[in-house]
Amino acid sequence: MTRTLADELARVAGREHVIADPEVRASYERDVTGRYRGEAALVVRPARDQLPGVVRACAAAGAAVVPQGGNTGLAGGQIPLGGAVVLRLDRLDAEPRIDRAAAQARVEAGVTLADLQRALAGTPYEFAVDHGARSAATLGGMAATNAGGSQVFRHGAMRAQVIGLEAVLADGSVVTRTSGLIKDNVGYDLPGLLVGSEGTLGVITELVLRLIPRRAHRLTGLLGVASTEQAVELLAALRDRVPSLVACELFFPEGMELVSAHRQVEPPFRIETGAYVLLECAGDEPPLDELAAGLEHAPRPTAEAFADDTAGRERLWLFREAHNEALNAAGVPHKFDVTVPLDRIARFEREVRRAVEPSRAVVYGHLGDGNLHVNVLGPPPEDTEIDALVLELVASHGGSISAEHGIGQSRRAFVPLGRSPADIAAMRAIKHALDPNGILNPGKLLPALVV
Amino acid sequence: MTRTLADELARVAGREHVIADPEVRASYERDVTGRYRGEAALVVRPARDQLPGVVRACAAAGAAVVPQGGNTGLAGGQIPLGGAVVLRLDRLDAEPRIDRAAAQARVEAGVTLADLQRALAGTPYEFAVDHGARSAATLGGMAATNAGGSQVFRHGAMRAQVIGLEAVLADGSVVTRTSGLIKDNVGYDLPGLLVGSEGTLGVITELVLRLIPRRAHRLTGLLGVASTEQAVELLAALRDRVPSLVACELFFPEGMELVSAHRQVEPPFRIETGAYVLLECAGDEPPLDELAAGLEHAPRPTAEAFADDTAGRERLWLFREAHNEALNAAGVPHKFDVTVPLDRIARFEREVRRAVEPSRAVVYGHLGDGNLHVNVLGPPPEDTEIDALVLELVASHGGSISAEHGIGQSRRAFVPLGRSPADIAAMRAIKHALDPNGILNPGKLLPALVV
Repeated sequence: MTRTLADELARVAGREHVIADPEVRASYERDVTGRYRGEAALVVRPARDQLPGVVRACAAAGAAVVPQGGNTGLAGGQIPLGGAVVLRLDRLDAEPRIDRAAAQARVEAGVTLADLQRALAGTPYEFAVDHGARSAATLGGMAATNAGGSQVFRHGAMRAQVIGLEAVLADGSVVTRTSGLIKDNVGYDLPGLLVGSEGTLGVITELVLRLIPRRAHRLTGLLGVASTEQAVELLAALRDRVPSLVACELFFPEGMELVSAHRQVEPPFRIETGAYVLLECAGDEPPLDELAAGLEHAPRPTAEAFADDTAGRERLWLFREAHNEALNAAGVPHKFDVTVPLDRIARFEREVRRAVEPSRAVVYGHLGDGNLHVNVLGPPPEDTEIDALVLELVASHGGSISAEHGIGQSRRAFVPLGRSPADIAAMRAIKHALDPNGILNPGKLLPALVV
Repeated sequence: MTRTLADELARVAGREHVIADPEVRASYERDVTGRYRGEAALVVRPARDQLPGVVRACAAAGAAVVPQGGNTGLAGGQIPLGGAVVLRLDRLDAEPRIDRAAAQARVEAGVTLADLQRALAGTPYEFAVDHGARSAATLGGMAATNAGGSQVFRHGAMRAQVIGLEAVLADGSVVTRTSGLIKDNVGYDLPGLLVGSEGTLGVITELVLRLIPRRAHRLTGLLGVASTEQAVELLAALRDRVPSLVACELFFPEGMELVSAHRQVEPPFRIETGAYVLLECAGDEPPLDELAAGLEHAPRPTAEAFADDTAGRERLWLFREAHNEALNAAGVPHKFDVTVPLDRIARFEREVRRAVEPSRAVVYGHLGDGNLHVNVLGPPPEDTEIDALVLELVASHGGSISAEHGIGQSRRAFVPLGRSPADIAAMRAIKHALDPNGILNPGKLLPALVV
């Protein structure tokens, strides 16, 4: 079957874009953390207009397809299982088209976040979602997983940026909602449904994205605070008082040490501190006065460093953004990406550290949304008890078991912690309706059906 | 059957909440414009916890159910067809719960927009969607139709405000996504799918809504401009330069005359003008300086009036908001609610007036989103040729046949003008998956299946 399918895919996409060699395939079969490894029958790199034919060929052969963007996902959603065909979307990388009058960008699925940011340099606009994996993460993958990042509490996650999209469905048909009209109230919100569906309902090929006005001035501040409680109080004091605040990140001394050692950089201040809060402001006026006025209402920091130039700001952001990379260098962590209501953050942070002992938790995240990344170093990758332990703790605080990384492979067994049987049944019904033969990214997102 | 169903519904919801009397039923069977009239077998007014039982009873009897909020919809979506059971949701009206820390409101489906606005008075927050039917329109109905209004180009329509919801599905099961977590990336976006589904996929019973900071200062301006082209130029000049601009509305001398005569009010200025633009600004500082600076880049108005006090602002808004009421008094208009790309607005406005001659078009709308309400007075209600004429013109300009009113009964035949066969097939598959027996609001939203 594979032999025939390879020929058929070569006919549709060109032989040079069908990869069967196991060594070349290998990089598409494992994720950056080393936790998720699978096996692909083939990797195919279609051009955009070849995608419907590729999906039809796979459907005809009964072969599962796994869309893959930049392979930066942290939940294993993009990793093939049991010999699926990987649809690598890197040839869908036409130059982004910026519509200044409408404040919209039109991008193909394989365009990276950094590419879009470059295309917007010199325009009065920027893109509202940003995160540390910008150089490799593609906008198609970010939409498919409803990626979040640091500015969600101000601007929303990917779903809030997607005005329209084009996608190839399981039967090779193409849904096109790319008019770019903000008000277009004709039937069900298929774009919103496809965003966050992790390739299980369709393959996103193009996006029409909302842009936001670029602010003339940016300011980054790194503050030491005595405790997690004080970090939460700080956010509460600033959120409404400082409209220019667009990011409010949290990390701890353990992460500062990890990043400093890994990157061989000196922390901006060396002082005993309970937690670090990284603030980013963006305004038409320099935001320092507004931020300073807001900080009058917040707990006094133990130490602080500010920068309003690009190099200085990047130096401060590095301590937050290099956490993931430093952790990957330190081992294969159990990665958790959870939301906890703000009034439970401090308690949860204490409890989760205790719960995973004697393993060690490295905690950081997007305080503005109550989104914590809990990384547990120590237990072997196949230890699912630690997963249950942490996620049940999250659920007991009314939190979410996946804030922004999605479900992928890693969390599907735990979906019932966050979704009721009626909810899961409705999701299954939608999946079955749009992909009756289950060829789109099987083994991801929905929990295994127990019969 | 109806007799048995009435008894069963009385058992679930109480006999006093099951209305069979044709005279009492009548007000639930027709819309405010007089265009849509139908027949209900019964009207039932369940409490929230009775709703699953009511839906199950109707499903068991094979009776269709039509959810109805404030009966302010303009597309006939809330009007029963062929003896369906009307689910009147006015008993789902618990006092809104405002969570100040999270900047969220939790409301039952039958709460009106005006009720929510009252509940928010005295808090630092407001609700981002507003429109003229606020005193009767319910938030459940607004969510079910993805209502828009005047501030969409800044804050999005209803879907962008819905953080979570509870809904009863066709089998009486309840989907609950009301944690209020901003980042909760666990599976498909059922809330976003239910928003705008017009009661065809489920009955929304509760909403968790995003709130926005209330700005201390508001300013309303009514400007006369020489032409529709100049109105569009005005918007382009102000949109990015005036961040405090939250509404930019358009109407014409014919509407000004209609409203002035109907409400017996004097226009703020009497001067030959091609079009009127109504601007609303909201800022932490008085917005006049910012607006004046923006207007330096715009075509010079022929006349202007400003108000920053509540009474004065309401006087100016009246000329825009009383259009619908004045039109209903003037006849039974063919109402169109369309979006046209901004660079086509002026041309479309000229063409549509010519196209409907000798009938008369009254045009107004939300310029900020390219959303025009075209009301054609003259042709009899059953004249569908005029509908086809106008909507095909919209489609030829790359516009949307329904901007914010939804599809309901009125536009279902025209859905193929805005959605491809693959798109409609996907919507049908979802409808069938979630409502296999077709009991939820049949004859609405999806085009009739031609076999």
